[in-house]
Amino acid sequence: MAGSKFAYVRNFELPDPLLQETYIVLRIDGHSFHRFSEDHEFAKPNDVRALQLMDEAASSVMETFTDITLAFGESDEFSFLFKRSTSVYNRRHAKILTSVVSQFTASYVFNWAKHFPGVNLKYPPSFDGRIVLYPTEKVVRDYFSWRQADTHINNLYNTAFWALVQEGKQTTAQAHEALRGTNSAQKNQLLFERFGVNYNSVPERMRKGSVIVREEVVNEDGSPDVGNKGKGGKKRVPTRVTVLHCDLIRDEFWRERPYILLE
Amino acid sequence: MAGSKFAYVRNFELPDPLLQETYIVLRIDGHSFHRFSEDHEFAKPNDVRALQLMDEAASSVMETFTDITLAFGESDEFSFLFKRSTSVYNRRHAKILTSVVSQFTASYVFNWAKHFPGVNLKYPPSFDGRIVLYPTEKVVRDYFSWRQADTHINNLYNTAFWALVQEGKQTTAQAHEALRGTNSAQKNQLLFERFGVNYNSVPERMRKGSVIVREEVVNEDGSPDVGNKGKGGKKRVPTRVTVLHCDLIRDEFWRERPYILLE
Amino acid sequence: MAGSKFAYVRNFELPDPLLQETYIVLRIDGHSFHRFSEDHEFAKPNDVRALQLMDEAASSVMETFTDITLAFGESDEFSFLFKRSTSVYNRRHAKILTSVVSQFTASYVFNWAKHFPGVNLKYPPSFDGRIVLYPTEKVVRDYFSWRQADTHINNLYNTAFWALVQEGKQTTAQAHEALRGTNSAQKNQLLFERFGVNYNSVPERMRKGSVIVREEVVNEDGSPDVGNKGKGGKKRVPTRVTVLHCDLIRDEFWRERPYILLE
Amino acid sequence: MAGSKFAYVRNFELPDPLLQETYIVLRIDGHSFHRFSEDHEFAKPNDVRALQLMDEAASSVMETFTDITLAFGESDEFSFLFKRSTSVYNRRHAKILTSVVSQFTASYVFNWAKHFPGVNLKYPPSFDGRIVLYPTEKVVRDYFSWRQADTHINNLYNTAFWALVQEGKQTTAQAHEALRGTNSAQKNQLLFERFGVNYNSVPERMRKGSVIVREEVVNEDGSPDVGNKGKGGKKRVPTRVTVLHCDLIRDEFWRERPYILLE
Repeated sequence: MAGSKFAYVRNFELPDPLLQETYIVLRIDGHSFHRFSEDHEFAKPNDVRALQLMDEAASSVMETFTDITLAFGESDEFSFLFKRSTSVYNRRHAKILTSVVSQFTASYVFNWAKHFPGVNLKYPPSFDGRIVLYPTEKVVRDYFSWRQADTHINNLYNTAFWALVQEGKQTTAQAHEALRGTNSAQKNQLLFERFGVNYNSVPERMRKGSVIVREEVVNEDGSPDVGNKGKGGKKRVPTRVTVLHCDLIRDEFWRERPYILLE
Repeated sequence: MAGSKFAYVRNFELPDPLLQETYIVLRIDGHSFHRFSEDHEFAKPNDVRALQLMDEAASSVMETFTDITLAFGESDEFSFLFKRSTSVYNRRHAKILTSVVSQFTASYVFNWAKHFPGVNLKYPPSFDGRIVLYPTEKVVRDYFSWRQADTHINNLYNTAFWALVQEGKQTTAQAHEALRGTNSAQKNQLLFERFGVNYNSVPERMRKGSVIVREEVVNEDGSPDVGNKGKGGKKRVPTRVTVLHCDLIRDEFWRERPYILLE
Repeated sequence: MAGSKFAYVRNFELPDPLLQETYIVLRIDGHSFHRFSEDHEFAKPNDVRALQLMDEAASSVMETFTDITLAFGESDEFSFLFKRSTSVYNRRHAKILTSVVSQFTASYVFNWAKHFPGVNLKYPPSFDGRIVLYPTEKVVRDYFSWRQADTHINNLYNTAFWALVQEGKQTTAQAHEALRGTNSAQKNQLLFERFGVNYNSVPERMRKGSVIVREEVVNEDGSPDVGNKGKGGKKRVPTRVTVLHCDLIRDEFWRERPYILLE
Repeated sequence: MAGSKFAYVRNFELPDPLLQETYIVLRIDGHSFHRFSEDHEFAKPNDVRALQLMDEAASSVMETFTDITLAFGESDEFSFLFKRSTSVYNRRHAKILTSVVSQFTASYVFNWAKHFPGVNLKYPPSFDGRIVLYPTEKVVRDYFSWRQADTHINNLYNTAFWALVQEGKQTTAQAHEALRGTNSAQKNQLLFERFGVNYNSVPERMRKGSVIVREEVVNEDGSPDVGNKGKGGKKRVPTRVTVLHCDLIRDEFWRERPYILLE
């Protein structure tokens, strides 16, 4: 950006550093995905192809941004956690936010054909994003618990709703009406009694969403695959971005992966 | 986002409204496009296919965001101007910024094959973005003048540089050395004397960049094509997103298009 | 602030520059002044001593901050306008805001005895403040019109209210009840018919508030008192911080003082 | 603030909430206190009257803002720590910042005569302030350690400097020259050998600054003075704002006062 007499306009750019030593959580949401999913005939209540495409886009983000220690996704949203000490892009708000959203979007469109073979992408989908700072480990855990609890609530509702529509032959209005005011136990009961569905046997992918972590690579004998020396000469166990569908509300998940919140 | 006991974490989201009655300028830049352009063998100094793909992505943004009155692009960057009174997304910073960057990115990847027939997209490119607020008409004009002056400076340099390399058979290091410290007149002279190139005959697309506006649709006889009544019963002349390669530094451009800065 | 191993904590300070070329309006409000005015037996509906003390504190701020071109005060509040090009304290938000609020407060306490001779200041009063940015001349004018319209509305109400209490011997509850839902004309009529008060004869200080400007100093013959050469060798007419009680809603006020919004 | 047609200008006020669950540190600094201290002939290197006046202003702030758990002051500055869960003024940045700075300033001017009997306050002093957020206990402790380390460094220098000037009869330029590049040990040695001063016998007030905490009120027999039941019926031990001059860098200080960082 060379120096013309107009270059003074750069001075209107305001700095936007994110507070240090706080966890950066970045959440991406699909834009108008209700319509997008209809236009592309996503299966209901869940389209595995669409979920796997989301996972792939999120994984590509984690491959690029190595300071992301955890991601969680459901439906058309994904949340990413940066380690609290990250200095990526000098913690500049807009730079981090747009780079992640853009890469996620690009990867989604790029990998469409792989996950939807034979399905034409009619128009490019888009996503929005936001960053929220969380200052303590507790509230970071509660954030991810919030999203996973939401997954459960939404999926149970949608499973019952689409059972009523697809197998119960109700209209969508009737199905909404039938579920109005019901609690979880009642939806479980409805699924089991009317449709023979044991909700707990629904695949974990649907009930738990996608949890993406960096797992250590182990050798065939189970020992850590100690790789080359990293900076400072310490050997580091290499890690691999891995998609799980597990509970992250309980302590166990975090106890087994102290690195997520450590630095 | 249903109400679990974890929902309190939403309260950590901070509001981010942009100051009212200021012009919002949003600039998008390609991420690592030097490498991306080499990996995809872009022609030098300019690859028309790549520029047209940028124009198409920018035009798709303007089709969606009707409060954008002007866009300007060169190389791997594009700037968008929202009218000062816009209330799109209630002027929420992150929402506007990420929605535009995401749609631009998605459109770029989606339309790749159309502009690069037979060229495989090896990996998804990404873009970052930023918003800068400009409070006065003058400084908005100076912003766009800054970008177009930059286009000129860069393109003259690159035209001379690649002439030295491609026709002059110099190494890139030699070409950089040959141009070090030269002014515009000297580069013009070099192009003309050594390579018979009159810089002013280089296509305007290269020298001026891409200026995207909303032009009124006219009938075959040149009269405005008055369309249907809009809100409030006033007939509005319909407009069409149009890509130009013209000078926007001079008054003329703005005088002919008062709507750009009006509202 | 010397360099110990703890000095890294400075990096948590975030920059807070105010957007360039926007008007900075800084408003100060008395904290718990209802109680403060009762504890110090302010006259009702207006205590001229208290208003003059506010004017003096505001004038002292304007003497110090020469980029303030206008101030407006009523009751326990004062608003200050910085010229849009000001670079005071490099436009750092907290620095400007706290410096003005602190000086105003200090001046208020310091000058108490001068304006309230024989009245003991029982405890130190305090003020809060905020900065709002306004990008256009129109909205700056509307801001000050808003405050002066507010002065009128409040003062008319208070004048009627205290007439009912002090001369009408009503309780405050009865007086509030009597005025509920009345418009301006009705309050004027009530003042005139029941108490023989022509509201327009109430001093302008009460009806218009205090408008503080920099007036040019004139010689006895009315000619401008051209002072010493300023920077750059141009003779500048010296100015004096002057308190007026005039209408600032009409164009006339601004037409006569173009310097307020000019730079 | 009644509703005229101008009231829309309020919409330009931007929200400014401080991130939840982070420690709010607010530091106040004297404005041009070098000149102020000369104009009022403060004793050098330390004026106990001035320090006690600062302590009184800070104590008054702590009496008002009960969510402040710790304050530290030296020279013409004071830092205040709000508990991390505070919801004072809904954590609005400008409101908290200006209210504290204003009260501090008001108290300083109000109490001048008490601490400087017979010394005329020539003009009102002012202070600026800033808020910095600290997300962890560690960095809060390091912040206060930074300030106290600074106190030590400055006071040792000033003590040596004024000994050279006052007793050594050096000019200030000579004294600065004599101290240039010396470390702590050398300054201690100089004080002892040339002026017979054991720096460790300098009063703790000078060497450690002022640490203001809320100490529990104890009965004469040393038992806690359990007061009335607070909200929720729990008896609370009443506390008293207390000025100490002690080390706060070591663990001991914090171990004895867990309440400072707890909530």
